[in-house]
Amino acid sequence: MAIREVGPRDGLQVESPLPVEARVEFILELIEAGLTCIEVAAFVSPSRVPSMADASAVLKALPADPEVSYFALVPNLRGAQMAMEAGVGALTVTVSASESYSVANVGRGRDEASGEVDRILALAAGVVPVDVVVSCAFGYAGTDPADLDWVAAQARRWAGTGPCSLTLADTTGEAGPPGIEEAVERFGPDFGLHLHETRRTGLVNAYAALEAGVRRFDTSVAGLGGSPFAHGAAGNLATEDLVHLLDLLGLDTGVRLDRLFEASGRISQLLGRDPTAVVRSGPAAGLRRA
Amino acid sequence: MAIREVGPRDGLQVESPLPVEARVEFILELIEAGLTCIEVAAFVSPSRVPSMADASAVLKALPADPEVSYFALVPNLRGAQMAMEAGVGALTVTVSASESYSVANVGRGRDEASGEVDRILALAAGVVPVDVVVSCAFGYAGTDPADLDWVAAQARRWAGTGPCSLTLADTTGEAGPPGIEEAVERFGPDFGLHLHETRRTGLVNAYAALEAGVRRFDTSVAGLGGSPFAHGAAGNLATEDLVHLLDLLGLDTGVRLDRLFEASGRISQLLGRDPTAVVRSGPAAGLRRA
Repeated sequence: MAIREVGPRDGLQVESPLPVEARVEFILELIEAGLTCIEVAAFVSPSRVPSMADASAVLKALPADPEVSYFALVPNLRGAQMAMEAGVGALTVTVSASESYSVANVGRGRDEASGEVDRILALAAGVVPVDVVVSCAFGYAGTDPADLDWVAAQARRWAGTGPCSLTLADTTGEAGPPGIEEAVERFGPDFGLHLHETRRTGLVNAYAALEAGVRRFDTSVAGLGGSPFAHGAAGNLATEDLVHLLDLLGLDTGVRLDRLFEASGRISQLLGRDPTAVVRSGPAAGLRRA
Repeated sequence: MAIREVGPRDGLQVESPLPVEARVEFILELIEAGLTCIEVAAFVSPSRVPSMADASAVLKALPADPEVSYFALVPNLRGAQMAMEAGVGALTVTVSASESYSVANVGRGRDEASGEVDRILALAAGVVPVDVVVSCAFGYAGTDPADLDWVAAQARRWAGTGPCSLTLADTTGEAGPPGIEEAVERFGPDFGLHLHETRRTGLVNAYAALEAGVRRFDTSVAGLGGSPFAHGAAGNLATEDLVHLLDLLGLDTGVRLDRLFEASGRISQLLGRDPTAVVRSGPAAGLRRA
């Protein structure tokens, strides 16, 4: 089971800026809880996303640990260069399968954005791993249906350009189990899933994906985040909800639930939010007795 | 698919009392949305549960409709007599599989409470259907593990006493998919499930139950309710979350999602709550286009 924690990036990006020290402390707590794959920064314009400023400083402050992969989101080739200069462990690159989301979100069409992915893959090949996150892979907010044909065509080209893994994101919470199963039929189970709780379907989609063999998930502690650009996209699948479910299913994650709940409670408090339901209630009885 | 809407009873019982007219209007909106099985009242002590006072008046104000079953919760034989005199369509009787919950909740042990179920079944036989809801069927808050042996023994005796159906309730949100599957292995899929979102596991448990063949669910519009006696038990599985999932799965419920969302939004507003996530966001894109 591979969980990529995206709270320090995808979560914090929509919040008021926190100082570098607080962001680093948050990441260290997540590592303490046993998370080994963490998206810690984004090399984006600090004027556009102020809470992601000082990405290099965050990376520099984190301890080198062979067990932990630090991911940074990069929106373009220049961001990728900066992230690699800062010594990032892996890159996240996003491209939207929805033309209208792509234009609204990054100011260019999906094919142009996909071409930039090629350039980043060529740059990173042999240096750092790249995960390509396809947003709106299950459709977008009533205007664009899922377009797995387009995703499959891009994925084939990317794979020919440089080594990369694929993550499908349900950016505005449109997917249901049938959509997840269709994606597995199309791509096999070796992709990551980035799910949202826009309509409280994130966890059930994760469960359907688990049953279909998917083993990589993006989650955000305390359910922080969403897209700052897509209306109604708030709420990533919460890390504690997924880990709690995996524990109920007897699937090993390497994550300590008690420490994870502590980290979630602390960041919720710091951001002035209520703790999430499972953090407030504690683990289910069977896990407490175990 | 059979959905029993419990919002007007299990939901409203933990709220400040609403006038009979408002409760009736709420129920009529749920019928308008296509719900045909509704728990509308409880024949309990109005001093203990003030929001459930005037149960007979609620029943009297509801239109007779051969398509709609009005359930009332009865805590004991006297409540059953009152409900039957008031012309109820069906009875809900609860008994807890957890000894400590039973003592804390109704002031008597589970075996004594189960004996009262026998007396109610004998009274109702041939007059009104009875659904026996076993609370804490999947364990209770760290003290009592699930005890399906006890449930099975009672269910056998009840079935010999008078016709009844069985519902298993996850009163404090302890269940996960393995516990649901174990119950199906034990009882077959012909039972109702009453799930809670205490730990945000309600919908995923419903999905696991659907896959195992379960077709009866208790839900509460807007996720209202929980037990007024069990700490942390708040939050029934929301009717709109389940119906939305069933629509995504292509399973017919007879419920109109738009009307259901309206009813949910209105009761949330009346009670001063935020609308639920799916009501706020609207149905997933694929359902909007359908």
